[in-house]
Amino acid sequence: MRKVFQAELHQIGEGLIEISQLVSAAIVKSNTAFKGADTELAQEVIAADARIDFLQNDLDERAIDILARQGPVASDLRMIVGALRMSASLERMGDLARHIAQLARLRFPANVIPEGVRGTFDELAELDEQIASKVTELLETRNLELTNEINAAKARVSALHAGVFKAVAAQDWDESAPTTVDVTLASRYYERFADHGVSVASKVTYLVTGEWQPTAPLM
Amino acid sequence: MRKVFQAELHQIGEGLIEISQLVSAAIVKSNTAFKGADTELAQEVIAADARIDFLQNDLDERAIDILARQGPVASDLRMIVGALRMSASLERMGDLARHIAQLARLRFPANVIPEGVRGTFDELAELDEQIASKVTELLETRNLELTNEINAAKARVSALHAGVFKAVAAQDWDESAPTTVDVTLASRYYERFADHGVSVASKVTYLVTGEWQPTAPLM
Repeated sequence: MRKVFQAELHQIGEGLIEISQLVSAAIVKSNTAFKGADTELAQEVIAADARIDFLQNDLDERAIDILARQGPVASDLRMIVGALRMSASLERMGDLARHIAQLARLRFPANVIPEGVRGTFDELAELDEQIASKVTELLETRNLELTNEINAAKARVSALHAGVFKAVAAQDWDESAPTTVDVTLASRYYERFADHGVSVASKVTYLVTGEWQPTAPLM
Repeated sequence: MRKVFQAELHQIGEGLIEISQLVSAAIVKSNTAFKGADTELAQEVIAADARIDFLQNDLDERAIDILARQGPVASDLRMIVGALRMSASLERMGDLARHIAQLARLRFPANVIPEGVRGTFDELAELDEQIASKVTELLETRNLELTNEINAAKARVSALHAGVFKAVAAQDWDESAPTTVDVTLASRYYERFADHGVSVASKVTYLVTGEWQPTAPLM
């Protein structure tokens, strides 16, 4: 019985890793679509998000089923509840990657991001990819060093996000209103994606150490 | 033992109602602050959000403690897992009310919303207040009729949100870039608030009927 239980817990962990891998692939593709106004790639991300949603639902059902049948306690219980929360964050990350892809598709063939802030967005894109990839690695290895790296990347994302708003408010910003909207939303999506990455990382930390590190209030 | 358990479950339900009432008060105050560029009121919302966060954490801990001690099954288990999810959505609604208040404070003494879309934002504000109040009532009464009303209000919010983007893209939009940013973010916050309201409502429906009604994918 105990052996079955451990196998089920292990499968939940594997399920989270699988979802995280898909999220990681999604943000890479979204970024490429976003930079190159590639609608086909954008369409791929949008379609792949349905798979992430399906896997999340499936994982959640299995987790609840384990709660019902096994009545886990202590660290096993913590793991299951943590998995339910992490799956919700990962699912949101998938949604946000989809939103970025949708922005690319919406404005096709125009490029969403004006030249003046393109460097900032390249860095935001790169940081979110790093965060997604480190979250996957953290789920696989539980190496908590990665948490610090994820938090540092998130801090940089927040600074860049603030920088975007400064650029938009500056005298020399002369982009159209729809472009301003796109830049605002894209920056916000990148920041929320990073937030959820931090949130997953803090839950892994909690599972490993048993100590709850409340993350800074999300803006 | 069973009696204690039922009392604990009841307290979780009461806890959700309390958080929902605070969220409802927060969105009303945020809207007033937002319309009148009232920084004191905005400050109140920002401070009150910390209380919502505290209550959510406290409720989640109690819920997990019940899972550990009582190993609930069937509808009791569903209720506890549902409570964890609803508390997360309610907490996000509190965050979004805070974001709206923060927009008001950031631009003080200027009014965030230009005249041309003020009617739209008045309606968005009103709809989000209705949604918050109906969510509280739904948690209190479990009257599923309210779910339809919440979904209808959400559909209207989505239409208004799309209308805001149309207004911003129109030829006659001649607002500054920072105002365009504010309008974009505010509209998005109102829409996300409504999304989370629908999400709570769908979980109540699930608890009452046992049937999962997946909501439309959130944009």
